[in-house]
Amino acid sequence: MSFFVSLSGPGDRRIKRLLDIYMDVNYHLTSQARVCDSKDRNCMRKSKQEAAVTRQHIIKAAAEEFRKNGIAGTGLSDLMAAAGLTHGGFYRHFDSKDQIVAEACTAAAESLVEQLAASASKKSPQRGLKTIVEKYLSAAHRDEPADGCPLAALGSEMARADEATRAAATEAFLKLVNVIAAQFGKVRPDVARRRALIVAPAMIGALTMARIVTNSELSAAILQQTEKHLTNL
Amino acid sequence: MSFFVSLSGPGDRRIKRLLDIYMDVNYHLTSQARVCDSKDRNCMRKSKQEAAVTRQHIIKAAAEEFRKNGIAGTGLSDLMAAAGLTHGGFYRHFDSKDQIVAEACTAAAESLVEQLAASASKKSPQRGLKTIVEKYLSAAHRDEPADGCPLAALGSEMARADEATRAAATEAFLKLVNVIAAQFGKVRPDVARRRALIVAPAMIGALTMARIVTNSELSAAILQQTEKHLTNL
Repeated sequence: MSFFVSLSGPGDRRIKRLLDIYMDVNYHLTSQARVCDSKDRNCMRKSKQEAAVTRQHIIKAAAEEFRKNGIAGTGLSDLMAAAGLTHGGFYRHFDSKDQIVAEACTAAAESLVEQLAASASKKSPQRGLKTIVEKYLSAAHRDEPADGCPLAALGSEMARADEATRAAATEAFLKLVNVIAAQFGKVRPDVARRRALIVAPAMIGALTMARIVTNSELSAAILQQTEKHLTNL
Repeated sequence: MSFFVSLSGPGDRRIKRLLDIYMDVNYHLTSQARVCDSKDRNCMRKSKQEAAVTRQHIIKAAAEEFRKNGIAGTGLSDLMAAAGLTHGGFYRHFDSKDQIVAEACTAAAESLVEQLAASASKKSPQRGLKTIVEKYLSAAHRDEPADGCPLAALGSEMARADEATRAAATEAFLKLVNVIAAQFGKVRPDVARRRALIVAPAMIGALTMARIVTNSELSAAILQQTEKHLTNL
Protein backbone atom coordinates (compact mmCIF):
# COMPACT_ATOMS: atom_id res chain seq x y z
CA MET A 1 0.00 0.00 0.00
CA SER A 2 1.54 3.34 -1.07
CA PHE A 3 0.39 6.95 -1.31
CA PHE A 4 1.65 10.52 -1.57
CA VAL A 5 3.25 12.28 1.43
CA SER A 6 4.80 15.78 1.34
CA LEU A 7 8.36 16.40 2.59
CA SER A 8 7.24 18.63 5.48
CA GLY A 9 5.96 15.87 7.80
CA PRO A 10 7.96 14.27 10.63
CA GLY A 11 7.99 11.01 8.65
CA ASP A 12 10.53 12.37 6.25
CA ARG A 13 13.27 12.83 8.83
CA ARG A 14 15.06 9.75 7.53
CA ILE A 15 15.32 11.27 4.08
CA LYS A 16 16.43 14.65 5.44
CA ARG A 17 19.04 12.89 7.56
CA LEU A 18 20.40 11.01 4.54
CA LEU A 19 20.58 14.26 2.55
CA ASP A 20 22.35 15.89 5.50
CA ILE A 21 24.93 13.12 5.76
CA TYR A 22 25.44 13.16 1.98
CA MET A 23 26.05 16.93 1.98
CA ASP A 24 28.41 16.77 4.94
CA VAL A 25 30.46 13.90 3.49
CA ASN A 26 30.54 15.66 0.14
CA TYR A 27 31.76 18.91 1.72
CA HIS A 28 34.39 17.05 3.72
CA LEU A 29 35.75 15.17 0.70
CA THR A 30 35.87 18.18 -1.62
CA SER A 31 37.41 20.54 0.97
CA GLN A 32 40.08 17.96 1.84
CA ALA A 33 40.87 17.47 -1.87
CA ARG A 34 41.07 21.22 -2.37
CA VAL A 35 43.48 21.97 0.48
CA CYS A 36 45.65 18.86 0.90
CA ASP A 37 47.46 16.63 -1.49
CA SER A 38 47.97 13.07 -0.31
CA LYS A 39 51.65 13.47 0.68
CA ASP A 40 51.26 16.72 2.66
CA ARG A 41 51.73 15.46 6.24
CA ASN A 42 51.48 18.92 7.87
CA CYS A 43 48.13 19.39 6.25
CA MET A 44 46.88 15.97 7.39
CA ARG A 45 48.04 16.65 10.96
CA LYS A 46 46.28 19.99 10.90
CA SER A 47 43.11 18.36 9.66
CA LYS A 48 43.31 15.80 12.51
CA GLN A 49 43.82 18.57 15.06
CA GLU A 50 40.82 20.42 13.70
CA ALA A 51 38.71 17.26 13.92
CA ALA A 52 39.78 16.81 17.55
CA VAL A 53 38.85 20.41 18.36
CA THR A 54 35.47 19.99 16.67
CA ARG A 55 34.91 16.75 18.59
CA GLN A 56 35.57 18.46 21.94
CA HIS A 57 33.31 21.32 20.91
CA ILE A 58 30.48 18.86 20.13
CA ILE A 59 30.97 17.05 23.47
CA LYS A 60 30.79 20.35 25.37
CA ALA A 61 27.60 21.42 23.59
CA ALA A 62 26.10 17.93 24.04
CA ALA A 63 26.89 17.92 27.77
CA GLU A 64 24.91 21.15 28.13
CA GLU A 65 21.99 19.97 25.99
CA PHE A 66 21.68 16.63 27.81
CA ARG A 67 21.72 18.30 31.24
CA LYS A 68 19.15 20.85 30.05
CA ASN A 69 16.72 18.58 28.17
CA GLY A 70 17.54 15.03 29.25
CA ILE A 71 19.04 12.13 27.30
CA ALA A 72 15.84 10.96 25.59
CA GLY A 73 14.78 14.61 25.16
CA THR A 74 17.89 15.56 23.16
CA GLY A 75 18.06 14.45 19.55
CA LEU A 76 21.35 14.28 17.61
CA SER A 77 20.17 17.19 15.46
CA ASP A 78 19.49 19.24 18.63
CA LEU A 79 22.98 18.74 20.01
CA MET A 80 24.67 19.32 16.66
CA ALA A 81 22.60 22.50 16.19
CA ALA A 82 23.70 23.61 19.69
CA ALA A 83 27.30 23.13 18.49
CA GLY A 84 26.49 25.18 15.37
CA LEU A 85 26.92 22.18 13.07
CA THR A 86 24.70 20.12 10.79
CA HIS A 87 23.32 16.80 11.97
CA GLY A 88 25.11 14.77 9.29
CA GLY A 89 28.57 15.63 10.64
CA PHE A 90 27.86 13.73 13.86
CA TYR A 91 28.92 10.35 12.49
CA ARG A 92 32.33 11.64 11.46
CA HIS A 93 33.13 11.98 15.18
CA PHE A 94 30.97 9.45 17.05
CA ASP A 95 29.60 5.96 16.43
CA SER A 96 26.32 6.41 18.28
CA LYS A 97 24.26 8.57 20.62
CA ASP A 98 25.25 6.24 23.50
CA GLN A 99 28.91 7.09 22.88
CA ILE A 100 28.40 10.84 23.11
CA VAL A 101 26.15 10.48 26.19
CA ALA A 102 28.99 8.63 27.96
CA GLU A 103 31.67 11.13 26.87
CA ALA A 104 29.47 14.13 27.72
CA CYS A 105 28.86 12.69 31.20
CA THR A 106 32.61 12.27 31.74
CA ALA A 107 33.38 15.81 30.56
CA ALA A 108 30.62 17.34 32.71
CA ALA A 109 31.75 15.42 35.81
CA GLU A 110 35.39 16.42 35.30
CA SER A 111 34.41 20.06 35.05
CA LEU A 112 32.23 19.85 38.19
CA VAL A 113 34.86 18.04 40.27
CA GLU A 114 37.58 20.47 39.16
CA GLN A 115 35.42 23.41 40.28
CA LEU A 116 34.61 21.77 43.63
CA ALA A 117 38.25 20.77 44.25
CA ALA A 118 39.46 24.28 43.36
CA SER A 119 36.97 25.94 45.71
CA ALA A 120 38.01 23.59 48.56
CA SER A 121 41.77 23.66 47.91
CA LYS A 122 42.61 26.72 49.99
CA LYS A 123 40.58 25.69 53.02
CA SER A 124 41.27 23.55 56.08
CA PRO A 125 39.79 20.03 55.71
CA GLN A 126 36.54 20.63 57.61
CA ARG A 127 36.08 24.01 55.86
CA GLY A 128 36.78 22.25 52.55
CA LEU A 129 33.83 19.89 53.07
CA LYS A 130 31.61 22.82 54.03
CA THR A 131 32.63 24.72 50.88
CA ILE A 132 31.92 21.73 48.63
CA VAL A 133 28.54 20.99 50.21
CA GLU A 134 27.51 24.68 50.12
CA LYS A 135 28.55 25.04 46.49
CA TYR A 136 26.84 21.82 45.41
CA LEU A 137 23.62 22.62 47.30
CA SER A 138 23.47 26.28 46.28
CA ALA A 139 20.42 27.88 44.65
CA ALA A 140 22.71 28.75 41.70
CA HIS A 141 23.50 25.06 41.09
CA ARG A 142 19.81 24.14 41.47
CA ASP A 143 18.80 26.78 38.90
CA GLU A 144 21.53 26.00 36.33
CA PRO A 145 21.37 22.27 35.59
CA ALA A 146 22.99 22.75 32.14
CA ASP A 147 26.23 23.78 33.84
CA GLY A 148 26.03 21.47 36.86
CA CYS A 149 26.35 17.90 38.11
CA PRO A 150 25.42 15.37 35.41
CA LEU A 151 24.41 12.80 38.04
CA ALA A 152 21.71 15.10 39.45
CA ALA A 153 20.62 16.34 36.02
CA LEU A 154 20.43 12.87 34.43
CA GLY A 155 20.36 10.39 37.35
CA SER A 156 17.13 8.52 36.71
CA GLU A 157 17.80 8.38 32.97
CA MET A 158 21.34 7.12 33.55
CA ALA A 159 20.05 4.22 35.63
CA ARG A 160 18.40 2.99 32.40
CA ALA A 161 21.32 3.80 30.09
CA ASP A 162 23.64 1.36 28.31
CA GLU A 163 26.64 -0.24 30.07
CA ALA A 164 29.22 2.28 28.73
CA THR A 165 27.18 5.28 29.91
CA ARG A 166 26.65 3.70 33.32
CA ALA A 167 30.40 2.98 33.49
CA ALA A 168 31.12 6.66 32.70
CA ALA A 169 28.58 7.71 35.35
CA THR A 170 30.23 5.33 37.84
CA GLU A 171 33.60 7.01 37.19
CA ALA A 172 31.96 10.42 37.56
CA PHE A 173 30.44 9.36 40.88
CA LEU A 174 33.79 8.02 42.15
CA LYS A 175 35.51 11.31 41.25
CA LEU A 176 32.91 13.15 43.32
CA VAL A 177 33.33 10.64 46.18
CA ASN A 178 37.13 11.07 46.09
CA VAL A 179 37.07 14.87 46.22
CA ILE A 180 34.69 14.66 49.21
CA ALA A 181 36.73 11.95 50.97
CA ALA A 182 39.83 14.16 50.64
CA GLN A 183 38.15 16.76 52.90
CA PHE A 184 37.99 14.55 56.02
CA GLY A 185 41.53 15.45 57.09
CA LYS A 186 43.16 13.06 59.54
CA VAL A 187 40.38 10.46 59.41
CA ARG A 188 41.45 6.98 58.16
CA PRO A 189 41.04 6.66 54.34
CA ASP A 190 38.46 3.85 54.53
CA VAL A 191 36.40 5.84 57.05
CA ALA A 192 36.65 8.97 54.88
CA ARG A 193 35.49 6.98 51.87
CA ARG A 194 32.52 5.51 53.75
CA ARG A 195 31.48 9.00 54.86
CA ALA A 196 31.84 10.30 51.29
CA LEU A 197 29.59 7.42 50.11
CA ILE A 198 26.90 8.95 52.34
CA VAL A 199 27.55 12.61 51.42
CA ALA A 200 27.63 12.30 47.60
CA PRO A 201 24.26 10.50 47.09
CA ALA A 202 22.62 12.72 49.75
CA MET A 203 23.73 15.85 47.84
CA ILE A 204 22.57 14.36 44.52
CA GLY A 205 19.16 13.42 45.97
CA ALA A 206 18.64 16.79 47.67
CA LEU A 207 19.55 18.77 44.54
CA THR A 208 17.25 16.61 42.40
CA MET A 209 14.32 17.03 44.81
CA ALA A 210 14.96 20.78 45.19
CA ARG A 211 14.63 21.05 41.40
CA ILE A 212 11.42 19.03 41.25
CA VAL A 213 9.24 20.60 43.96
CA THR A 214 6.98 23.47 42.92
CA ASN A 215 7.02 25.18 46.33
CA SER A 216 10.04 27.50 46.53
CA GLU A 217 10.16 27.48 50.36
CA LEU A 218 10.17 23.69 50.38
CA SER A 219 12.90 23.68 47.73
CA ALA A 220 15.06 26.01 49.84
CA ALA A 221 14.37 23.95 52.99
CA ILE A 222 15.52 20.72 51.26
CA LEU A 223 18.84 22.32 50.29
CA GLN A 224 19.30 24.00 53.67
CA GLN A 225 18.54 20.98 55.87
CA THR A 226 20.78 18.64 53.90
CA GLU A 227 23.57 21.24 53.80
CA LYS A 228 23.42 21.78 57.57
CA HIS A 229 23.36 18.05 58.23
CA LEU A 230 26.24 17.12 55.91
CA THR A 231 28.59 19.90 56.99
CA ASN A 232 28.31 18.60 60.56
CA LEU A 233 29.13 14.99 59.71
CA MET B 1 7.89 17.92 -3.52
CA SER B 2 6.07 14.60 -3.16
CA PHE B 3 6.93 10.93 -3.63
CA PHE B 4 5.86 7.42 -2.71
CA VAL B 5 6.31 6.10 0.84
CA SER B 6 5.17 2.65 2.01
CA LEU B 7 2.97 2.26 5.10
CA SER B 8 5.62 0.33 7.07
CA GLY B 9 7.91 3.30 7.86
CA PRO B 10 7.85 5.32 11.10
CA GLY B 11 6.56 8.33 9.11
CA ASP B 12 3.15 6.81 8.81
CA ARG B 13 2.45 6.73 12.53
CA ARG B 14 0.13 9.72 12.21
CA ILE B 15 -2.06 7.84 9.73
CA LYS B 16 -2.01 4.67 11.82
CA ARG B 17 -2.96 6.72 14.87
CA LEU B 18 -5.90 8.32 13.06
CA LEU B 19 -7.09 4.87 11.92
CA ASP B 20 -6.69 3.63 15.50
CA ILE B 21 -8.74 6.48 16.95
CA TYR B 22 -11.38 6.02 14.24
CA MET B 23 -11.69 2.30 15.00
CA ASP B 24 -11.84 2.86 18.77
CA VAL B 25 -14.48 5.58 18.52
CA ASN B 26 -16.45 3.46 16.08
CA TYR B 27 -16.31 0.41 18.38
CA HIS B 28 -17.33 2.53 21.37
CA LEU B 29 -20.31 4.10 19.57
CA THR B 30 -21.62 0.88 18.09
CA SER B 31 -21.22 -1.15 21.31
CA GLN B 32 -22.99 1.59 23.33
CA ALA B 33 -25.82 1.72 20.77
CA ARG B 34 -26.13 -2.08 20.86
CA VAL B 35 -26.36 -2.41 24.65
CA CYS B 36 -28.01 0.81 25.91
CA ASP B 37 -30.99 2.77 24.84
CA SER B 38 -30.86 6.47 25.68
CA LYS B 39 -33.21 6.31 28.69
CA ASP B 40 -31.60 3.29 30.37
CA ARG B 41 -29.91 4.94 33.39
CA ASN B 42 -28.60 1.69 34.88
CA CYS B 43 -26.83 0.99 31.66
CA MET B 44 -25.29 4.48 31.51
CA ARG B 45 -24.11 4.21 35.10
CA LYS B 46 -22.58 0.83 34.35
CA SER B 47 -20.81 2.28 31.33
CA LYS B 48 -19.41 5.12 33.47
CA GLN B 49 -18.22 2.63 36.08
CA GLU B 50 -16.53 0.58 33.38
CA ALA B 51 -14.81 3.70 32.03
CA ALA B 52 -13.54 4.52 35.54
CA VAL B 53 -12.18 0.98 35.97
CA THR B 54 -10.47 1.15 32.58
CA ARG B 55 -9.00 4.54 33.50
CA GLN B 56 -7.50 3.16 36.72
CA HIS B 57 -6.19 0.15 34.81
CA ILE B 58 -4.44 2.47 32.31
CA ILE B 59 -2.92 4.59 35.12
CA LYS B 60 -1.57 1.46 36.84
CA ALA B 61 -0.01 0.16 33.62
CA ALA B 62 1.37 3.61 32.79
CA ALA B 63 2.92 4.00 36.25
CA GLU B 64 4.83 0.74 35.66
CA GLU B 65 5.90 1.66 32.13
CA PHE B 66 7.13 5.13 33.11
CA ARG B 67 9.15 3.78 36.04
CA LYS B 68 10.61 1.06 33.79
CA ASN B 69 11.40 3.09 30.66
CA GLY B 70 11.26 6.74 31.69
CA ILE B 71 8.81 9.49 30.74
CA ALA B 72 10.36 10.42 27.38
CA GLY B 73 11.08 6.72 26.74
CA THR B 74 7.42 5.68 27.05
CA GLY B 75 5.10 6.46 24.15
CA LEU B 76 1.31 6.54 24.50
CA SER B 77 1.08 3.42 22.36
CA ASP B 78 3.56 1.64 24.68
CA LEU B 79 1.54 2.37 27.79
CA MET B 80 -1.79 1.55 26.14
CA ALA B 81 -0.29 -1.71 24.84
CA ALA B 82 0.91 -2.48 28.39
CA ALA B 83 -2.72 -2.01 29.49
CA GLY B 84 -3.83 -4.38 26.70
CA LEU B 85 -5.62 -1.57 24.84
CA THR B 86 -5.20 0.20 21.53
CA HIS B 87 -3.53 3.58 21.33
CA GLY B 88 -6.65 5.40 20.07
CA GLY B 89 -8.58 4.74 23.28
CA PHE B 90 -6.17 6.93 25.27
CA TYR B 91 -7.96 10.19 24.50
CA ARG B 92 -11.29 8.89 25.79
CA HIS B 93 -9.71 8.93 29.27
CA PHE B 94 -6.95 11.57 29.28
CA ASP B 95 -6.31 14.95 27.68
CA SER B 96 -2.55 14.58 27.27
CA LYS B 97 0.55 12.60 28.12
CA ASP B 98 1.39 15.20 30.81
CA GLN B 99 -1.91 14.39 32.54
CA ILE B 100 -1.26 10.67 32.76
CA VAL B 101 2.35 11.23 33.88
CA ALA B 102 1.06 13.32 36.81
CA GLU B 103 -1.67 10.81 37.73
CA ALA B 104 0.69 7.84 37.38
CA CYS B 105 3.18 9.57 39.70
CA THR B 106 0.47 10.14 42.31
CA ALA B 107 -0.74 6.53 42.11
CA ALA B 108 2.79 5.13 42.37
CA ALA B 109 3.64 7.34 45.35
CA GLU B 110 0.42 6.39 47.17
CA SER B 111 1.18 2.72 46.72
CA LEU B 112 4.79 3.16 47.95
CA VAL B 113 3.83 5.23 51.00
CA GLU B 114 1.04 2.77 51.93
CA GLN B 115 3.54 -0.10 51.82
CA LEU B 116 6.10 1.80 53.89
CA ALA B 117 3.51 2.95 56.44
CA ALA B 118 2.10 -0.59 56.75
CA SER B 119 5.54 -2.09 57.33
CA ALA B 120 6.31 0.52 60.02
CA SER B 121 2.88 0.52 61.72
CA LYS B 122 3.51 -2.32 64.16
CA LYS B 123 6.90 -1.08 65.31
CA SER B 124 8.08 1.33 67.97
CA PRO B 125 8.96 4.77 66.51
CA GLN B 126 12.72 4.24 66.17
CA ARG B 127 12.17 0.70 64.79
CA GLY B 128 9.60 2.17 62.38
CA LEU B 129 12.22 4.49 60.86
CA LYS B 130 14.68 1.59 60.59
CA THR B 131 12.05 -0.55 58.83
CA ILE B 132 11.22 2.21 56.32
CA VAL B 133 14.86 2.98 55.55
CA GLU B 134 15.74 -0.73 55.19
CA LYS B 135 12.78 -1.38 52.93
CA TYR B 136 13.44 1.69 50.77
CA LEU B 137 17.18 0.96 50.47
CA SER B 138 16.80 -2.78 49.88
CA ALA B 139 18.35 -4.61 46.92
CA ALA B 140 14.80 -5.65 45.97
CA HIS B 141 13.71 -2.01 45.61
CA ARG B 142 16.88 -1.18 43.66
CA ASP B 143 16.25 -4.06 41.25
CA GLU B 144 12.51 -3.43 40.72
CA PRO B 145 12.10 0.22 39.69
CA ALA B 146 8.78 -0.52 37.91
CA ASP B 147 7.20 -1.32 41.27
CA GLY B 148 9.06 1.25 43.39
CA CYS B 149 9.46 4.91 44.25
CA PRO B 150 8.51 7.18 41.31
CA LEU B 151 10.82 9.94 42.61
CA ALA B 152 13.88 7.70 42.38
CA ALA B 153 12.79 6.13 39.07
CA LEU B 154 11.91 9.44 37.37
CA GLY B 155 13.61 12.15 39.46
CA SER B 156 15.79 13.87 36.89
CA GLU B 157 13.04 13.70 34.25
CA MET B 158 10.48 15.12 36.68
CA ALA B 159 12.68 18.15 37.36
CA ARG B 160 12.08 19.04 33.67
CA ALA B 161 8.38 18.10 33.60
CA ASP B 162 5.39 20.44 33.30
CA GLU B 163 3.95 22.26 36.34
CA ALA B 164 1.14 19.71 36.99
CA THR B 165 3.56 16.78 37.02
CA ARG B 166 5.97 18.64 39.31
CA ALA B 167 3.00 19.49 41.59
CA ALA B 168 2.07 15.78 41.69
CA ALA B 169 5.71 14.90 42.43
CA THR B 170 5.77 17.54 45.20
CA GLU B 171 2.71 15.90 46.80
CA ALA B 172 4.35 12.49 46.43
CA PHE B 173 7.51 13.79 48.12
CA LEU B 174 5.51 15.33 50.99
CA LYS B 175 3.68 12.02 51.57
CA LEU B 176 7.06 10.32 51.88
CA VAL B 177 8.33 13.08 54.20
CA ASN B 178 5.21 12.75 56.40
CA VAL B 179 5.45 8.99 56.81
CA ILE B 180 9.12 9.37 57.79
CA ALA B 181 8.42 12.30 60.18
CA ALA B 182 5.78 10.16 61.93
CA GLN B 183 8.53 7.73 62.99
CA PHE B 184 10.43 10.19 65.21
CA GLY B 185 8.23 9.51 68.23
CA LYS B 186 8.28 12.15 70.93
CA VAL B 187 10.37 14.63 68.98
CA ARG B 188 8.68 18.01 68.29
CA PRO B 189 6.76 17.99 64.96
CA ASP B 190 8.88 20.74 63.35
CA VAL B 191 12.09 18.91 64.34
CA ALA B 192 10.70 15.61 63.01
CA ARG B 193 9.80 17.28 59.71
CA ARG B 194 13.27 18.84 59.37
CA ARG B 195 14.85 15.43 59.95
CA ALA B 196 12.51 13.83 57.42
CA LEU B 197 13.55 16.51 54.89
CA ILE B 198 17.09 15.12 55.24
CA VAL B 199 16.12 11.42 55.20
CA ALA B 200 13.81 11.39 52.15
CA PRO B 201 16.18 13.02 49.60
CA ALA B 202 19.13 11.01 50.98
CA MET B 203 17.22 7.76 50.36
CA ILE B 204 16.15 8.90 46.87
CA GLY B 205 19.73 9.87 45.95
CA ALA B 206 21.25 6.65 47.32
CA LEU B 207 18.73 4.43 45.50
CA THR B 208 19.28 6.32 42.24
CA MET B 209 23.08 6.03 42.50
CA ALA B 210 22.89 2.35 43.51
CA ARG B 211 20.93 1.74 40.29
CA ILE B 212 23.39 3.66 38.11
CA VAL B 213 26.79 2.26 39.16
CA THR B 214 28.08 -0.75 37.25
CA ASN B 215 30.11 -2.16 40.15
CA SER B 216 27.85 -4.35 42.30
CA GLU B 217 30.01 -4.01 45.44
CA LEU B 218 29.90 -0.22 45.13
CA SER B 219 26.13 -0.36 44.60
CA ALA B 220 25.69 -2.44 47.77
CA ALA B 221 28.03 -0.13 49.71
CA ILE B 222 26.01 2.97 48.73
CA LEU B 223 22.79 1.39 50.03
CA GLN B 224 24.46 0.02 53.16
CA GLN B 225 26.28 3.20 54.23
CA THR B 226 23.24 5.44 53.76
CA GLU B 227 21.00 2.91 55.54
CA LYS B 228 23.34 2.71 58.52
CA HIS B 229 23.67 6.48 58.70
CA LEU B 230 19.95 7.28 58.44
CA THR B 231 18.76 4.69 60.93
CA ASN B 232 21.04 6.28 63.53
CA LEU B 233 19.76 9.83 62.99
